[in-house]
Amino acid sequence: MTWLRAATGLARHAARRAALARATTPTPGARSAGFHTSALRRRAAAPAPRAVPLSRLTDSFLDGTSSVYLEELQRAWEADPASVDESWDNFFRNFLGQAASPTAGLSGQTIQESMQLLLLVRAYQVNGHMKAALDPLGLDDRAVPEDLDLALYGFTEADLDREFFLGVWMMAGFLSENRPVLTLREILSKLERAYCGPIGFEYMHIPDRDKCNWLREKIETVAPREYPKDRRLVMLDRLIWSTQFENFLATKWATAKRFGLEGGETLIPGMKEMFDRSADLGVENIVIGMPHRGRLNVLGNVVRKPLSQIFSEFAGGTRPVEGEDGLYTGTGDVKYHLGTSYDRPTRGGKRIHLSLVANPSHLEAVDPVVIGKTRAKQFYSNDDDRTKNMGILIHGDGSFAGQGVVYETLHLSALPNYTTGGTIHIVVNNQVAFTTDPRAGRSSQYCTDVAKAVNVPIFHVNGDDLEAVVRVCELAAEWRQTFHSDVVVDLICYRRFGHNEIDEPSFTQPKMYQVIKNHPSSLKLYEQKLLETGEVTKDDVQRIHDKVNRILNEEFAKSKDYVPNKRDWLSAYWTGFKSPEQISRVRNTGVKPEVLKRVGQAITTLPESFKPHRAVKKIFEQRAAMIESGEGIDWAVAEALAFAALIVEGNHVRLSGQDVERGTFSHRHSVVHDQETGAKYCPLDHVVMNQNEELFTVSNRFTF
Amino acid sequence: MTWLRAATGLARHAARRAALARATTPTPGARSAGFHTSALRRRAAAPAPRAVPLSRLTDSFLDGTSSVYLEELQRAWEADPASVDESWDNFFRNFLGQAASPTAGLSGQTIQESMQLLLLVRAYQVNGHMKAALDPLGLDDRAVPEDLDLALYGFTEADLDREFFLGVWMMAGFLSENRPVLTLREILSKLERAYCGPIGFEYMHIPDRDKCNWLREKIETVAPREYPKDRRLVMLDRLIWSTQFENFLATKWATAKRFGLEGGETLIPGMKEMFDRSADLGVENIVIGMPHRGRLNVLGNVVRKPLSQIFSEFAGGTRPVEGEDGLYTGTGDVKYHLGTSYDRPTRGGKRIHLSLVANPSHLEAVDPVVIGKTRAKQFYSNDDDRTKNMGILIHGDGSFAGQGVVYETLHLSALPNYTTGGTIHIVVNNQVAFTTDPRAGRSSQYCTDVAKAVNVPIFHVNGDDLEAVVRVCELAAEWRQTFHSDVVVDLICYRRFGHNEIDEPSFTQPKMYQVIKNHPSSLKLYEQKLLETGEVTKDDVQRIHDKVNRILNEEFAKSKDYVPNKRDWLSAYWTGFKSPEQISRVRNTGVKPEVLKRVGQAITTLPESFKPHRAVKKIFEQRAAMIESGEGIDWAVAEALAFAALIVEGNHVRLSGQDVERGTFSHRHSVVHDQETGAKYCPLDHVVMNQNEELFTVSNRFTF
Repeated sequence: MTWLRAATGLARHAARRAALARATTPTPGARSAGFHTSALRRRAAAPAPRAVPLSRLTDSFLDGTSSVYLEELQRAWEADPASVDESWDNFFRNFLGQAASPTAGLSGQTIQESMQLLLLVRAYQVNGHMKAALDPLGLDDRAVPEDLDLALYGFTEADLDREFFLGVWMMAGFLSENRPVLTLREILSKLERAYCGPIGFEYMHIPDRDKCNWLREKIETVAPREYPKDRRLVMLDRLIWSTQFENFLATKWATAKRFGLEGGETLIPGMKEMFDRSADLGVENIVIGMPHRGRLNVLGNVVRKPLSQIFSEFAGGTRPVEGEDGLYTGTGDVKYHLGTSYDRPTRGGKRIHLSLVANPSHLEAVDPVVIGKTRAKQFYSNDDDRTKNMGILIHGDGSFAGQGVVYETLHLSALPNYTTGGTIHIVVNNQVAFTTDPRAGRSSQYCTDVAKAVNVPIFHVNGDDLEAVVRVCELAAEWRQTFHSDVVVDLICYRRFGHNEIDEPSFTQPKMYQVIKNHPSSLKLYEQKLLETGEVTKDDVQRIHDKVNRILNEEFAKSKDYVPNKRDWLSAYWTGFKSPEQISRVRNTGVKPEVLKRVGQAITTLPESFKPHRAVKKIFEQRAAMIESGEGIDWAVAEALAFAALIVEGNHVRLSGQDVERGTFSHRHSVVHDQETGAKYCPLDHVVMNQNEELFTVSNRFTF
Repeated sequence: MTWLRAATGLARHAARRAALARATTPTPGARSAGFHTSALRRRAAAPAPRAVPLSRLTDSFLDGTSSVYLEELQRAWEADPASVDESWDNFFRNFLGQAASPTAGLSGQTIQESMQLLLLVRAYQVNGHMKAALDPLGLDDRAVPEDLDLALYGFTEADLDREFFLGVWMMAGFLSENRPVLTLREILSKLERAYCGPIGFEYMHIPDRDKCNWLREKIETVAPREYPKDRRLVMLDRLIWSTQFENFLATKWATAKRFGLEGGETLIPGMKEMFDRSADLGVENIVIGMPHRGRLNVLGNVVRKPLSQIFSEFAGGTRPVEGEDGLYTGTGDVKYHLGTSYDRPTRGGKRIHLSLVANPSHLEAVDPVVIGKTRAKQFYSNDDDRTKNMGILIHGDGSFAGQGVVYETLHLSALPNYTTGGTIHIVVNNQVAFTTDPRAGRSSQYCTDVAKAVNVPIFHVNGDDLEAVVRVCELAAEWRQTFHSDVVVDLICYRRFGHNEIDEPSFTQPKMYQVIKNHPSSLKLYEQKLLETGEVTKDDVQRIHDKVNRILNEEFAKSKDYVPNKRDWLSAYWTGFKSPEQISRVRNTGVKPEVLKRVGQAITTLPESFKPHRAVKKIFEQRAAMIESGEGIDWAVAEALAFAALIVEGNHVRLSGQDVERGTFSHRHSVVHDQETGAKYCPLDHVVMNQNEELFTVSNRFTF
């Protein structure tokens, strides 16, 4: 059999050479054919490879000529074993069989080929996103990375229908079909479908095998999900709402700035599906931070702020409100700075509480506010595993790459006293920042690259492909609830109009806006897709349009009579909150001396067996004396007494910032360290007898 | 031969099983033996693996049991081909030979093993740094990553002396020995030496094959460099200077804050070697930014500010200086905020100009200042390829992970109008930020992880290993001059005293400081190393100590008579610079009307064939009319005339910031875009006839 296989190998070799010669004819559309053959052509055009000095090979990692080189060497060795270096003689004798059957090992799947194949698969897992079809405008002119080129691995077109063993452990997704053996063509086709479609997955930078495997399973097993008809109709309905909302505003207030979502309308159905999936997985509360763009659409369609209220504010701005505590002035700031909160019903039949945090014009400044608010909700609802309250941040492409606070906030994400169990980040990626091109705004390929610094997965998605957007939004929700860590969705879209509706983008991006002018909306594209499948008729689509239009018009009519209400601004927690013009009653905040004595004892006592630094011991003795005598009380003791008094009244006290535990000037010592064991003791954790609840939090954090 | 090899394979298999049984005996020091065998033991202790359902295997990426599983399946297939799934039957028939010799393919090196071996090598390249001995204090308790464990790949101790083919293309470094075949033991030993010594290399995140190969070649080929005796003596001399300088200050001013370098003294020889290597490679000017810690040492030993001057300032603070333009007050700020510049001779016989930029207490705020100064030097010296002027930034571990400006500055690094051809970053990593532990200060493993966002290589080095420090400092210099991009050296050291010398670190880090108290200085360690080699005698060492001490004392004596000098502060460029108390003469800055008319024409003229947006065309026509009539001149025209007048006088005008090209309010239009071709035209580039020099730079940059 061995001889037969060797002969087959030689015949195949000849066929491969012939294929190489054929491949010199240019092949237009090679990329769309599923794999990249440019280097193949390049190589074929060059003179036939000959044995080259080893020193040259040392420079070529994975060089496509290597395997040809190996064959050349082998032939030389077959003719005369002394013609090659002794190490090669050893190699061929050991691995290709003895002199009796020198070519035995090279037919079938060689070791060299196995390694190359593995590297090819790995290359798709790492770099497949570079070839994904991410840009809805098709202006993306990224080069396909070399390492996605078959020829780099020594494979030619003649190898496409050969069968290869992939390894049982290597590609979970492929294995789900019980087929460890596939043709190279099948392998490539699966890789292209998984990694080079409308979604670009970046996850191989995560140094955690379980997380990578979880994602790989999702990416490689699940074919781009074909959603059933009922899901598709919901998505269509939501996309129509998103699109019609902007159209309606544009019609009613043609010359107003609204920072509309046009070009990125799939954000709305994407968010809704993300929230539905999150609710299925246990999330009850979502805190949202976002900039101007699309804010009114998110308020109206996602958070469900009444449309009549939005229209009323749009028409007349905000008006002073009479409340039970007197005049409340609301805010004088513009409508796209406002926040609000509502309960939203979900697809799964639950209710989810959404709050959108007010936002200044200072890009990304809201990020730590959202995280802090989420953390506070978790604290007050005893959400210890942080699965019920979640933060969502929506970013712009320019600001995500440009604002240091993004990096600072990401570095809070896994700190014990700051984590919120994972924030979902959505970048509404316009591919332009006001008037600035990406290549003038950042030094790396994607605006999301900073997320790699904290081992966060990044899903880039073509914003024109609604179902792909929904797929990554659901995946992000699943990731967050599974691993309790951050995740980034990079929604690659475009901005149909200027930075706002009265800005002219053609001044600075003429080519891009020529393309945008003729580009159909994502709603048009999705309607077309559904009509083509035959699942939906034109009438079905029209019915939804009519319904949405009718409701918009009804709400518009109602808006004329809308009376602003204090509750539009303040949720239950803030009852009694005063406006800037009101003066609060002076309340008695004093504490009885015996309370101070009692808590004073607690905050100056260390456990018996505890070994503090002797200087700290002395400080604590002095503090005890101050408490005892009531005299000479210094800043640190007064501060600790104030904290303790608040704790005794059941309040949570949180101290956070640079070196706050000890105090910058070595004055506070709210956490004491045992000099022998390194154990920590925080006296303010022991102010109340059997203090089960964590009522005092103190946390060093270097900056902020 | 085939049957003989199969028999050998079976015998080897039995031996492997026996080895597995032996391996259940705990093996202390397995890690220092060069590779990690814990999972090996774990696996051996479990019941012998049996055929498992495929569904379970889909969960296990690279599971160590897989190859055993394969053997089990194979045996089942040998006994009865119908007992396995049809796909397996196909597989074994295709790849292991026909029924006549079923085991032929599994002896020697199997395809499965080849793939596993490749993944093992790749794992070291990616994660080897996780096992490197980086912490001089030995307190590092990182777990060795699973994927550096032999057993994960199905290898056992019995495989260690088997020979494997590595592939000619895979490991350039290994190939330099002309040996594509190595035992597993040799492969592991090489990997451990390259990746798990005193240097941890992170570079596989760089998506550029050439850069990765360049680094791999340096890392894998070059054994930890054994420097010749003369180089070692220079390093020793430099380390003695660094160490004695701090000792001297500590003796003379025992209670003063100096933010000394103790614990990180190798920074000084490291920087000097980096600068020597940079000078060899063409660098003539280095701009340095750094925080307080080690600043006096860098000033005195690296930049070569006269010691007598440093001592004088230390003793008396700064005094007012009489200059040719009147009284110059210098600065009232503390000594570790001061900057200066000097020419330093290099080992290669050149001179290199060093300037240390003044620094506020605001951490990392100096970063963009250094980059800007470097860029300006490049501009004014026509350093078009940016190889003559270089910026160096020294960071703290806490601030590198905590300050957003670090991220913002990194994202400037490759922008056309901001790049300086690569900054070398050195993190003086104390493993504590003031009083904050790393785990409370950042959400990822290393403080340097942000550099991965912009594809920068990161070299972590044990700061106690002087020669390793020098090696990475030289490598960083070579990288910068080769690829003109940023690079990070993470010098992992410790802080022998507190945040400053009068701060008590044991309050908050008692365990760490117990270890530090008994830890020898890096100078002691290096002296010991050299004495052990016999290259250097105790007398040699003492002679250097005596020399350094003598010079320090001489300079101290001189410092009492040191007269401050205006030139201590200001380099040549700033001659004529006034102090805050001085009032400048009012100079005539007016420009003759005919000049304004002439430049006005240039800035309102577009090329004949150019197709501006029609609104822009109209604006330019209006501007031309303003110039012509001299009436109704608006802000934008006045500004453009001012710039043009400066350019005519030969000045460089640089405009940079958010959307400055068009102007935020669409008013400037300093760059006009052809609506058909997208070509840009900047009228201010055409103010002077045959304007060869770039005198006007305008650059959108989203934030800052």
